[in-house]
Amino acid sequence: MNILIQHGMYFDETDGELRTGDIAVAGGKILNLGAVPSEFHADHILKAAGCFVTPALVNAHTHLAMSLFRNLADDMSLMDWLEHKIWPLEEKMGPSELYWASMLSMVELIRGGVTASADMYFGMDQVAQAAIDSGLRLNAAVGLTGDRRTAREKLRSFRDFFHQWEGAGEGLIRVDIGPHAPYTCDDGCFEEAAACAADLDCGIHVHLSETAGEVEETKNRFGLSPVELAARSGLFDQRCIAAHCVHVDRQDIELLNNSNVHVVHNPSSNLKLASGFARVKEMMDMGVNLAIGTDGSSSNNNLNMFEEMHLTALLAKALSGDPTALPAGQVLRMASVGGAAALGLPESGGRLRIGAPADIILVRMDGVHNSPLHDPRAAMVYSAQAADVDSVICNGRLLMERRRLPHLDEVEIRRKAQEAFEHLQ
Amino acid sequence: MNILIQHGMYFDETDGELRTGDIAVAGGKILNLGAVPSEFHADHILKAAGCFVTPALVNAHTHLAMSLFRNLADDMSLMDWLEHKIWPLEEKMGPSELYWASMLSMVELIRGGVTASADMYFGMDQVAQAAIDSGLRLNAAVGLTGDRRTAREKLRSFRDFFHQWEGAGEGLIRVDIGPHAPYTCDDGCFEEAAACAADLDCGIHVHLSETAGEVEETKNRFGLSPVELAARSGLFDQRCIAAHCVHVDRQDIELLNNSNVHVVHNPSSNLKLASGFARVKEMMDMGVNLAIGTDGSSSNNNLNMFEEMHLTALLAKALSGDPTALPAGQVLRMASVGGAAALGLPESGGRLRIGAPADIILVRMDGVHNSPLHDPRAAMVYSAQAADVDSVICNGRLLMERRRLPHLDEVEIRRKAQEAFEHLQ
Repeated sequence: MNILIQHGMYFDETDGELRTGDIAVAGGKILNLGAVPSEFHADHILKAAGCFVTPALVNAHTHLAMSLFRNLADDMSLMDWLEHKIWPLEEKMGPSELYWASMLSMVELIRGGVTASADMYFGMDQVAQAAIDSGLRLNAAVGLTGDRRTAREKLRSFRDFFHQWEGAGEGLIRVDIGPHAPYTCDDGCFEEAAACAADLDCGIHVHLSETAGEVEETKNRFGLSPVELAARSGLFDQRCIAAHCVHVDRQDIELLNNSNVHVVHNPSSNLKLASGFARVKEMMDMGVNLAIGTDGSSSNNNLNMFEEMHLTALLAKALSGDPTALPAGQVLRMASVGGAAALGLPESGGRLRIGAPADIILVRMDGVHNSPLHDPRAAMVYSAQAADVDSVICNGRLLMERRRLPHLDEVEIRRKAQEAFEHLQ
Repeated sequence: MNILIQHGMYFDETDGELRTGDIAVAGGKILNLGAVPSEFHADHILKAAGCFVTPALVNAHTHLAMSLFRNLADDMSLMDWLEHKIWPLEEKMGPSELYWASMLSMVELIRGGVTASADMYFGMDQVAQAAIDSGLRLNAAVGLTGDRRTAREKLRSFRDFFHQWEGAGEGLIRVDIGPHAPYTCDDGCFEEAAACAADLDCGIHVHLSETAGEVEETKNRFGLSPVELAARSGLFDQRCIAAHCVHVDRQDIELLNNSNVHVVHNPSSNLKLASGFARVKEMMDMGVNLAIGTDGSSSNNNLNMFEEMHLTALLAKALSGDPTALPAGQVLRMASVGGAAALGLPESGGRLRIGAPADIILVRMDGVHNSPLHDPRAAMVYSAQAADVDSVICNGRLLMERRRLPHLDEVEIRRKAQEAFEHLQ
């Protein structure tokens, strides 16, 4: 479908100027920026007056099927929460619950301007199917826990999963391996995951250094920090998404940077679970590629990247004592270009440039809370809400227009998700 | 106007149960909760199915007319921002600019579920008029800076302001005195403000201990912390709103508590300006009455109390290392009951009970990002957005219904505010 986005504000990254103009989308890619050739035939015109046209957001670490546990068990200690609330419910989740929970999340992602996510969970075929059914990109990481033996067993079936889903949905789906974390996997599990990823040439998605307790325990067990353990096990030899990285020292950060690891910051989850404050500015200053994620809806409690961008900018300033730290433009890049790199999208992913994948959002800038409009990038980070997202294009396909989702029955999806939760009780 | 709120979810504070039922509003007050007497005649029915009906939010520290400077000058150091951006523009603000800037904020407050604010600025007659014109409660604090002599002069005209505006708009307007801060006022100015407030029996609104630099400077100048200086000057002898209180020690907190000072937490502003992290949980544990504010839109950059509630809950957990700290219900109370007390509203203010002022909001809980709905109070703090506010009643008057403002021309207000800003250029 050829789409013409008409009279939108956008930042021209070639010269850093804010412009108003038309953007043409064809064949899933951005065809033109500014002036559109007269011979371009638009199947659909998106009127963008009053909107900021910007690359769609990337949620680089999440657990989409956990939407069913949103607002279910807050203000609890981590182990109490896991043992008494989350794990007993997760055990009962079958394909139907996983699918409808994921569909609920897909609608939330679209409504919040996200077109690509890196997910780690079990039952990933259901999550991947939900992504395809809703037209969204997904890096589907199959969660792995335990030791070398259990990893080997799991990785046998993973190979089938990989061949079935890698590139599915006309390229929307990428498959990653998800060795869960140093506190749920041993070094043998990590090594098997790394070897399999190298063999299949797929990415890795891992939780690293989320809590001080994890770092201490890993050092006691292996004589290494979680980051060092992951490096030694070979996890960094492929494209690697490392979620959290809250408790990392200078040596860890150098290792992450030298290994081209993509670090995903999850501020809401880190604060809400009292895990700590990640050293984002320090990591950025040292050159690490940074992305932003929401974590699952059970520990956030939503998939709202606007809240995460807001927190990312504010926390960096407060922690460094420097109000000029991490300006809005940098945060927006973390949530778009940074995330696209983490997911292994093409180099132009997360950018508004000719030839880039047409993953584009229109964000209303004419609400009172964004007025007067002085700087749409600052508005995105400091004053806008997820509900300001007006229209969403993913891979050249229109997924939301003026807050309406043409391809999805939202009421039915909410009903099915509600039923799915009741079925777990 | 008699309003019937039909089939809404609400927390019954008499027994802490979540109920679904009808709420009757008459004569500006809550007449009934649950079952409504058959003889009640409703002039208007508000259908509340799918909504959480809860006390309206109170923004207990803000500078509403600063909306014109939203997203204008971010990621800058404080003095650079004030000297090169804010002060030169403020100098040019006349009555018209102040009025339309305030009206823009009033619309934002309504849309975000806020019905009462404590404001401090200059040109407060324009801000108060805007509150009346939009049907909102306002504590209008006239800003005061300088020494005893300049304070005396200013307080002479303040007395006229007080008699003109106190109780105006059928009681919507309250007048407070606003001795600005220890770094802009000396002890003589504080003492004059305190004496005048005692004489008129009005409240005080002051910035206290916002930055480490302010505390150091105040100790050097007066041998006292800002809190001690305010106490010694008599500012705590009347109802006192103390904004920020970021850098307070145990002794300060005891003094605030023993003096019944209302402390207003402004997390976005404190982080964004790198002022620091307020010790909210410690203050609450010691018994201090706490409220929440947004500060002005120039340092936030909006009036979104949902963002502030979210931050308040999350920061308290991360700072204390305890995920059970400051649960959602406590945060909601800070943003309603706590704020109402700070503003000197009746004891039932900020509560959903029979006889309380009818300051009520309906918040949609059927969006995907709040689904499945397990706990509407957790949803308010952890997953909802300001845009979920569906309908707003202030003092028994319907100010917003299904996101439409029946009494205000929003497009015109945005246009006038835009013109006002251009006029300052």
